[in-house]
Amino acid sequence: MHHAPSPARPPLAPAFLEAARERFGHQWHESGAMLAQHGRSEAHFGPAPPDAVLFARSTQDVVDLVQLCTAHDVPIVPFGAGTSIEGNALPIHGGVSVNMSDMNAILAVHAEDFDCTVQAGCRREELNLHLRDMGLFFPIDPGANATIGGMASTRASGTNAVRYGTMREAVLALTVVTPDGKVIRTGSRARKSAAGYDLTRLFVGADGTLGIITEVTLRLHPIPEQISAAVCGFATLQGAVDTVVQSIQSGVPLARVELLDVMQIRAVNRWSKLDLPETTTLFFEFHGSPAGVAEQVATVEALAAENGVGDFAWSTLAEERARLWKARHEAYWAAVNLRPNAVGWSTDVCVPISRLPACILATQADLATCSVPATIVGHVGDGNFHVIFSIDPTSPDELAEVAAVNARIVERALAMDGTCTGEHGIGLGKQDWLVAELGDAVDIMRMLKRTMDPKNLFNPGKIFAL
Amino acid sequence: MHHAPSPARPPLAPAFLEAARERFGHQWHESGAMLAQHGRSEAHFGPAPPDAVLFARSTQDVVDLVQLCTAHDVPIVPFGAGTSIEGNALPIHGGVSVNMSDMNAILAVHAEDFDCTVQAGCRREELNLHLRDMGLFFPIDPGANATIGGMASTRASGTNAVRYGTMREAVLALTVVTPDGKVIRTGSRARKSAAGYDLTRLFVGADGTLGIITEVTLRLHPIPEQISAAVCGFATLQGAVDTVVQSIQSGVPLARVELLDVMQIRAVNRWSKLDLPETTTLFFEFHGSPAGVAEQVATVEALAAENGVGDFAWSTLAEERARLWKARHEAYWAAVNLRPNAVGWSTDVCVPISRLPACILATQADLATCSVPATIVGHVGDGNFHVIFSIDPTSPDELAEVAAVNARIVERALAMDGTCTGEHGIGLGKQDWLVAELGDAVDIMRMLKRTMDPKNLFNPGKIFAL
Repeated sequence: MHHAPSPARPPLAPAFLEAARERFGHQWHESGAMLAQHGRSEAHFGPAPPDAVLFARSTQDVVDLVQLCTAHDVPIVPFGAGTSIEGNALPIHGGVSVNMSDMNAILAVHAEDFDCTVQAGCRREELNLHLRDMGLFFPIDPGANATIGGMASTRASGTNAVRYGTMREAVLALTVVTPDGKVIRTGSRARKSAAGYDLTRLFVGADGTLGIITEVTLRLHPIPEQISAAVCGFATLQGAVDTVVQSIQSGVPLARVELLDVMQIRAVNRWSKLDLPETTTLFFEFHGSPAGVAEQVATVEALAAENGVGDFAWSTLAEERARLWKARHEAYWAAVNLRPNAVGWSTDVCVPISRLPACILATQADLATCSVPATIVGHVGDGNFHVIFSIDPTSPDELAEVAAVNARIVERALAMDGTCTGEHGIGLGKQDWLVAELGDAVDIMRMLKRTMDPKNLFNPGKIFAL
Repeated sequence: MHHAPSPARPPLAPAFLEAARERFGHQWHESGAMLAQHGRSEAHFGPAPPDAVLFARSTQDVVDLVQLCTAHDVPIVPFGAGTSIEGNALPIHGGVSVNMSDMNAILAVHAEDFDCTVQAGCRREELNLHLRDMGLFFPIDPGANATIGGMASTRASGTNAVRYGTMREAVLALTVVTPDGKVIRTGSRARKSAAGYDLTRLFVGADGTLGIITEVTLRLHPIPEQISAAVCGFATLQGAVDTVVQSIQSGVPLARVELLDVMQIRAVNRWSKLDLPETTTLFFEFHGSPAGVAEQVATVEALAAENGVGDFAWSTLAEERARLWKARHEAYWAAVNLRPNAVGWSTDVCVPISRLPACILATQADLATCSVPATIVGHVGDGNFHVIFSIDPTSPDELAEVAAVNARIVERALAMDGTCTGEHGIGLGKQDWLVAELGDAVDIMRMLKRTMDPKNLFNPGKIFAL
């Protein structure tokens, strides 16, 4: 598969290894199993194991590692939960994977200010468990139970973004270890600030190429007074997408609206042991006061009725809702596992909402002639959807076929003034498309990278070639 | 006054002037009156006139100017409406002011996608006039009728930020002429994107120091079904602020909530010919469906009653509302003109909402012992407020006294994990405070500036010293 690591890499210098073992003791790992675990990804990339793994326990650990690595020209690749799907955390040039999972503390929750500060290795589900009793929640939810640091680094979003935004909006401030080994704080807890360049937003989405995030201050939200969820099947894909577009254009503040095509419903039924009718389906969630939710629901039901909805199955029980959303969050693995021993490849285009029906329908036509099993699933309220291919990794033909379909989908999205990646990041897989999308702007990105990381040691080879 | 321009600046080279006159013809100005007009500010800085002024008509004009200026080492300072109040557009090192006011076209409105693209010189009021018939509005509203490019460059916000965010959230993409004379586009019209470094957010708030914004793609919002406004006087400042904090903490989606202290009400009454009762006052605005607005109002009225509200004067008439908000938008000039021939100085701290009561009350105590007339006015739903001083510009004592009070206010806000500037930007006036707030992070900003503008020609001397 492409972007394989260079096989001719020299081993790490003995002086480096000696110093690292001495400084980090049991936090330092060089066993084959540990390296293999940090050299795999959830998608069709790799394997690309690091030369060593550090389980960091403090920002100071990261500072010391950065100084050591910089002195010996050793790459450093931050590793959260390993759930990214563009190869974002693969150490393709070797070096040290910094596993952040032991830095998982919730450092402070300011309930009255709707913010909290966590260490980068804290996972989103654990954070929400902690917040629940305070009546608060953190809305950003990529499928996996990712770390907050990883989610910041890939500028993740998920099912709530249509209402609550993405990591771009959710992160108030970061603590970052920069390539020169300094610890900086990029902002305060103020809701807004015009204090100089927006470094917070520069590190959010940088895939760890500009420094290593060790702490994150996040915006939180009150758990809504009323939550209602609905699952509704449509006769056609067009009817489902039109319902979403019309709801958005009517100003309904949907909290979640997820589309699953027939194949995805089949996959989810099998993987998550559900028995949803096998038709194009929307999962809705409405947040607000009882009166507000009732208004939203009435508008959406009327629009759905005009667009060929089958039935509107309500789940007001929290348990039932949780079961549905768990299934939605597992959609990627459900789709990949349509075949045994398959690997996944997910597209991630996002287009202006008015172009979404044309974009999805043309994609459906592409898939009709594709021999590789694939599903369509998406955060359609944002104009963002994924095609998840279930690929036989031993078949170069399948990889080539998927690459060609992916190219058509991305080219179409760019022609509609959309983006090649709504939420997965560029990582390894979208580098050519980044240039197609943003042209000379990528030269500015390269310039920033060269300046901030002159030795190209921080997650080298990601986002763009240098 | 501080940051005066160097008096010993050499004149522009004849070869440069000749080439500029030839290329730009009637768009090029060197008259004393024109230079003076571009060398003044709305605050206590300056004057600092440029050596020449270009009225740009196209992105290509800006590209040609950048190439000419770079070849001759001449500074370039973008100029929008000249309404910023931290000296942001003052050409303190001379050079060319690029007046963007002829680049005021609305290039496209995509009503179905809630976005538009405008030239940087388009002003916010003209944009909203254009959008009104489409049922759309652009919410960001600093007091002045500023240009969209200037608002992007200072990361402006205003009265709607508590509900709709600031320019950080409002800008989807930018067209920028970079210091090397290239034209880049920083994003697409997609609602969200994870495509590489967030260059959009890097240029938003950069005060023109990294390049010149020529076009802006903005998020728009539907005009709410129902808008209600209320003006209510409180017995105490504490009662007013507590009402705001409790409303925010109750999750009420306030569209606007502005605080004006007694002095500010007096100033507004005089300047805008109103007859509001002279007491601490909140201006509220509620957006939503009729039922939603009714719910919000009921919650806020109950909280206000517990906090010593006097009366709740409703203005449901659009004309009456417009008159009130016009007065609010003119608050700065109303305050400065409490005395004849005065100049303004506005503080701009923003703190976590739970700290706002303590922060404002301590500020009120500071002002009680200050000899310079001052008002308190603020976007209190964001935790952001201004003290506007009306200073005798001939009195060094008054300037020193205000500087000392300002220092106390900023130090207090930073100790509360707030920011020295919620929305005015760093410009000239907050440079020391930026370092106090963000420490070593400012070194990263300087590094980015040196890389992107190696000759230090783009609005030199702003945000930080190099």
